Amino acid sequence: MADKRIFNFSAGPSMLPEEVLRTASEQMLNYKGSGMSVMEMSHRSSAYDQIIKEAQRRLRALLQIPDNYKVLFLQGGASTQFSAIPMNLLRSGSADYVITGHFANLAYKEATKYGAIQVAGSTQEENFSRIPTQEELQLRKDADYVYLCSNNTIYGTQWKYVPQTQGVPIVADMSSDILSRTIDVSQYGLIFAGAQKNMGIAGVTVVIVREDLLGFQLAGTPTMLNYQIMADKDSMYNTPPTYAIYILGLVLEWIERQGGLEAIEARNERKAKLLYDYLDSSTFYQAAAQKQDRSLMNVTFCTPSKELDALFVSESIKAGMSNLKGHRAVGGIRASIYNAMPMEGVEHLVAFMKAFEATNGGR
Amino acid sequence: MADKRIFNFSAGPSMLPEEVLRTASEQMLNYKGSGMSVMEMSHRSSAYDQIIKEAQRRLRALLQIPDNYKVLFLQGGASTQFSAIPMNLLRSGSADYVITGHFANLAYKEATKYGAIQVAGSTQEENFSRIPTQEELQLRKDADYVYLCSNNTIYGTQWKYVPQTQGVPIVADMSSDILSRTIDVSQYGLIFAGAQKNMGIAGVTVVIVREDLLGFQLAGTPTMLNYQIMADKDSMYNTPPTYAIYILGLVLEWIERQGGLEAIEARNERKAKLLYDYLDSSTFYQAAAQKQDRSLMNVTFCTPSKELDALFVSESIKAGMSNLKGHRAVGGIRASIYNAMPMEGVEHLVAFMKAFEATNGGR
Repeated sequence: MADKRIFNFSAGPSMLPEEVLRTASEQMLNYKGSGMSVMEMSHRSSAYDQIIKEAQRRLRALLQIPDNYKVLFLQGGASTQFSAIPMNLLRSGSADYVITGHFANLAYKEATKYGAIQVAGSTQEENFSRIPTQEELQLRKDADYVYLCSNNTIYGTQWKYVPQTQGVPIVADMSSDILSRTIDVSQYGLIFAGAQKNMGIAGVTVVIVREDLLGFQLAGTPTMLNYQIMADKDSMYNTPPTYAIYILGLVLEWIERQGGLEAIEARNERKAKLLYDYLDSSTFYQAAAQKQDRSLMNVTFCTPSKELDALFVSESIKAGMSNLKGHRAVGGIRASIYNAMPMEGVEHLVAFMKAFEATNGGR
Repeated sequence: MADKRIFNFSAGPSMLPEEVLRTASEQMLNYKGSGMSVMEMSHRSSAYDQIIKEAQRRLRALLQIPDNYKVLFLQGGASTQFSAIPMNLLRSGSADYVITGHFANLAYKEATKYGAIQVAGSTQEENFSRIPTQEELQLRKDADYVYLCSNNTIYGTQWKYVPQTQGVPIVADMSSDILSRTIDVSQYGLIFAGAQKNMGIAGVTVVIVREDLLGFQLAGTPTMLNYQIMADKDSMYNTPPTYAIYILGLVLEWIERQGGLEAIEARNERKAKLLYDYLDSSTFYQAAAQKQDRSLMNVTFCTPSKELDALFVSESIKAGMSNLKGHRAVGGIRASIYNAMPMEGVEHLVAFMKAFEATNGGR
């Protein structure tokens, strides 16, 4: 058992493709005959330059990022972007935030330090079990941007539509569903995502931003949070998180080998369907998110009692699965099934759920 | 040759102990029977909690950090601290900066966005070839802090004394000499360092700060740059750069095995002495920094001509050494000999230098 890898349902940092880990392990002491680890490379060296350029090229190709968008590799996690976004984009001072969960709310609160921020919609009263509809959104025509979180890790909901905003740029936190499906980047002003769910390891955050939005930062914006400077220096103003970008590149290569985002999306749909179909067929388990807005990445549910939830989690660990405990804010059970979770892992989980229901359903 | 590791004299990111890389490679797919890579661990898991706590404990022990100092593991590199320091510490609005090189100057410029910053000393007119003396420093008694950069990577100089500041806290950028020698942390208000020279990989920055300096951040300070919040959350406000902290822990373990900082310092002195003694005995090579302030970490010198400098660099690569080219701001040659550079690497370099002088000295 000590040698066996387990199915890791962690919400992030989370499972990585085993091939990526094998490559990283093999190249650790000597990257492609360079005589050194990627960890040891000067970020200004030609070997590293190729690594970071290839990562950007692959990301651009996979997401079909238009030429008028910059791709930045930054540090500080999505939480740092919660500050950087208003500091860079509040050119006239107002923005609309849609609150669909914990992280959208944090982003909103942070933005209120820097401008006149309004809540354009919220499902807090329904415990964030769904996404507001287009009709429910109260959007200002003159806002600098509309902010949303495309997938809500804690609650297990996901936006299934891109809102109409009458030309106001949409800023989207895609930390937990970037690269899980095809998107049309041109519908957004700015997309950002921490890497530690679908793209790699904690420590690098990708920002994809339309060029015309740059250059309007507030006075006092820290240099490292200034998108214009980061874009001008191609994410090399200072030493970037070199190894995290290397792992990102390996993950992007792996996605290419899977057949790109169409193939990844189809597989993610099959994985989620297996789990949701079983949840819907069961009277023992209760899914947390409303059907129309269910996330393909984070599946949230509970058993009939808190005690059984806890038993489920402890038994699942013995069955070779980890991190199925729901977030402390909502309890219950959460299965995060990002790109790197194989179908086999979901099948293993569903089989376990069935057996658990059979054993404990009569209590 | 493709399998052979080379002597990497890069100024940062830089050489790591081979033992650290071997351990990282071996644990890549399955960390101590956990069934997963450290890269894949939830930062809230008990396995990861032990990794980050152990890293902090080891750092505290090695540097003998007093209990009234907080240790933070942050992102964004030293450059992010150039903003965070004034935003957190300018409680009355003024600070004194000593300019001893490129990075001290960047820190100074960034700070001027946030308060009344004065230059307390500069050796720019002497091309930063030395450190100002205590007598040259013009320090205000009522400044919030005095800022210095303890080792100047580009110019090859290093502070050999801790200035008297009449109780004004000293803030020191130790990115390129932390853990290279023993220091008395209590002489500083705040010490910070990017990890990618002596501590690990790019992507984690250590901040060691005296508790009484916290809680005075300027309005508008981004949450992620607010030391008080990071301290209250023990660097876990959001997902920290988990893998970079793991590597930091492995490097700290390695330092312990070397005998701690006294042993490391003695070895660093021997390594530098070998190189400087040869430089001083040669009429071919010219050392760049003034003798009394020479860095033990970055040894800067040149040959009689730019052409020979370039030839030196290209020949050194063939001889199994990399990154000996001086920084573009000063030219010449620079050998960065951080903790992980073995004595054997310096001996190899000196032997190469002698042969190069013998061949090209007559030109």
